[in-house]
Amino acid sequence: MSDQVPACLTAEVVSIGDEMTSGARLDTNAQWLSRRLGELGLQVKFHSTVGDTLADNVDVFRIAASRANVVVSTGGLGPTRDDLTREALAAAIDRPLVQFDSALQHIESMFASRGRQMPARNHMQAMFPEGSQEIFNPQGTAPGVDLKFDSGGRVFALPGVPAEMKRMFDETVSPRILKDATAVGSAGGSHIRHDVMKFFGTGESDMEERLGQMIDRKRSPRVGITVSKATISLRITATGNSESDCAAQIAETRAEILERVSEFYFGDGETYDQQHAIDQQLRIAGQSLSIIELGRAAPLGDWFAAIEPTTSYRGGLSMSAATDLMAMLETDSIEASMATIAKKFASDWVILVDEYPSLDPSADQPIPASDVSIFVYDPAGNLHQKTVKIGGHPSIIQPRIAKTAMQFLRQQLQ
Amino acid sequence: MSDQVPACLTAEVVSIGDEMTSGARLDTNAQWLSRRLGELGLQVKFHSTVGDTLADNVDVFRIAASRANVVVSTGGLGPTRDDLTREALAAAIDRPLVQFDSALQHIESMFASRGRQMPARNHMQAMFPEGSQEIFNPQGTAPGVDLKFDSGGRVFALPGVPAEMKRMFDETVSPRILKDATAVGSAGGSHIRHDVMKFFGTGESDMEERLGQMIDRKRSPRVGITVSKATISLRITATGNSESDCAAQIAETRAEILERVSEFYFGDGETYDQQHAIDQQLRIAGQSLSIIELGRAAPLGDWFAAIEPTTSYRGGLSMSAATDLMAMLETDSIEASMATIAKKFASDWVILVDEYPSLDPSADQPIPASDVSIFVYDPAGNLHQKTVKIGGHPSIIQPRIAKTAMQFLRQQLQ
Repeated sequence: MSDQVPACLTAEVVSIGDEMTSGARLDTNAQWLSRRLGELGLQVKFHSTVGDTLADNVDVFRIAASRANVVVSTGGLGPTRDDLTREALAAAIDRPLVQFDSALQHIESMFASRGRQMPARNHMQAMFPEGSQEIFNPQGTAPGVDLKFDSGGRVFALPGVPAEMKRMFDETVSPRILKDATAVGSAGGSHIRHDVMKFFGTGESDMEERLGQMIDRKRSPRVGITVSKATISLRITATGNSESDCAAQIAETRAEILERVSEFYFGDGETYDQQHAIDQQLRIAGQSLSIIELGRAAPLGDWFAAIEPTTSYRGGLSMSAATDLMAMLETDSIEASMATIAKKFASDWVILVDEYPSLDPSADQPIPASDVSIFVYDPAGNLHQKTVKIGGHPSIIQPRIAKTAMQFLRQQLQ
Repeated sequence: MSDQVPACLTAEVVSIGDEMTSGARLDTNAQWLSRRLGELGLQVKFHSTVGDTLADNVDVFRIAASRANVVVSTGGLGPTRDDLTREALAAAIDRPLVQFDSALQHIESMFASRGRQMPARNHMQAMFPEGSQEIFNPQGTAPGVDLKFDSGGRVFALPGVPAEMKRMFDETVSPRILKDATAVGSAGGSHIRHDVMKFFGTGESDMEERLGQMIDRKRSPRVGITVSKATISLRITATGNSESDCAAQIAETRAEILERVSEFYFGDGETYDQQHAIDQQLRIAGQSLSIIELGRAAPLGDWFAAIEPTTSYRGGLSMSAATDLMAMLETDSIEASMATIAKKFASDWVILVDEYPSLDPSADQPIPASDVSIFVYDPAGNLHQKTVKIGGHPSIIQPRIAKTAMQFLRQQLQ
């Protein structure tokens, strides 16, 4: 691990399209690119969003290329009249558009593979500002543009389609940036590797406090913290001269992280959440689970159903209140209801949430904490119960309850 | 309705904070403000996002105020050292910061109402660039800044907290913009009124084609189209000299819309979706519903549980496959299973989705359409069935299936 402060390349992310400036679409590309650029060790200083107007695009590219070392844009590379990125780049750098034969051949072959002839308007997608490099697009007809401005910035123009944009960034743009960064001494080498660790059970600020200097942006490997509906992700990014160098750095950083916050750790991976950890553990034990959710939400049923592959999830039941549940099952207690469900669903474990509170959907303010009871019925027929107080913003409160329930279940599984 | 083309004020939205440029948080404020500004008849030309660095903030405000008539910023108004918006505005316009006594009193009273003394650092929140107007913040300690630049732009600086920002925009900023817009002849009057109509059953481009010139940005009242997980919203914005003038314009536009696309219309309101329409209809009829969801999702159970108030939703059940359902209920058909559930849950109607497909969670590309069967069991004990082919992007496919099921149920309810 190196602690020296490297010279830092700066970056700007540009998003192009009327659908973004008008607010019709939420710009998630800029967020994704900002995280990736940060992981490469760059400091993202600006985002700019601009509509489909040529003069505005020219201005935005000129400003961006003069104030950032790396500019990554998305959008405006399609075949329609609204797609102005190539033209804007050529005007901003004052060079003509020229045809790249390799790009034209790729576009023609994309159409041929679908049994179609290339429409005339797609010809435009093979035109590049003189002096550009092509950015290969394995999934679509729009190649990207890689163009160095005299004012210092290097512009990478990518399509707006997220799947195409992400792949082109990871496969082509990221290595080119890493090469530039290494040349100016702001990155640790030619290889890059990521690792994502997942945590639940504390807040972001507590996590930051416990991690201390580990989340400093100048640390190497970098540790980035993000939070999505109360689940915390730590993304470790190592750069080095070989894959094994990166792997060794990541292993060391993981160990350091676990020394500080192991009690909240439950697994690895961008889309991994507690339901996956529970399913994995149940499958290993050859056991199964069913879920009862009472009150004004039923997220666990949806989350567990979506796990693939799962052989542990038997089914879920949602009802308004415990009284309704007992009436339907003809039982006289929560415990007896859970025993009945365990039998009916042939499941070893049952978890019950009683109950998700009523939320005013129009409120946009934190609501006070209220009591929620979580019950776990285990394979030996024992009932475990915990009551928690949960409040917060209405958009987060039901997921937080569901995730607290999963945390309690995980404790019983251990 | 007036068809003349008004002179159009331009706007820029500025978002401030390292958490945005780094990608740690998704910027939803910019989208919300863009829609609101569009509804006021302004053309939003740019969004700019900048971190917590003074010089960068000064640059962004200077550029924005010189290229847009109206600039709305969010963030940087808190009491910490990272909060630089006041200082940046003062530097950008080259004027000193002066204390506004009214603002200081408000901040002190906010703390007093919580039984606390104002910390010294909050004093900064009462400082304004000379010549500013205060924007009252009824919910928090951070007042907003309203400042006219010599370069032409009028800057409204609001806090980043969405609830505070939205209320301050609607209560104070929006009327001030409307007054400016009326003065330059680009708005139809001093009053503004909104109406949101909801649709399901066709795509955005078909909807746009059917609506034709009705969605032209120069039309008055304006009709804006947005899509969220296959539900289409049309937001009508009327400006006029009185409430009743606005209401009359909206009524006329609603009638025109329904002439063109009534077959997809199901109700009104920003957060209104088909489950609310179904619940409303069932409550009026004094009837009830239960839900069975098979396969790799169970969104309907979650959505119906969340409706408030509902007396029509009895409960939901989710399982992997129809065979599991029949085994549990000891029945030999879907129909018999639905009859059993109707009886157990004491519900008049039962809807069953068979089944939500398996999705590769890592795929970021549209998946081919596959057959999904939807069954509705009515109060007379009749079974209605429909098979639909549904494909698309993985993030949208399960909601689309659930919403298609609700559409089929609505047809049976009629």
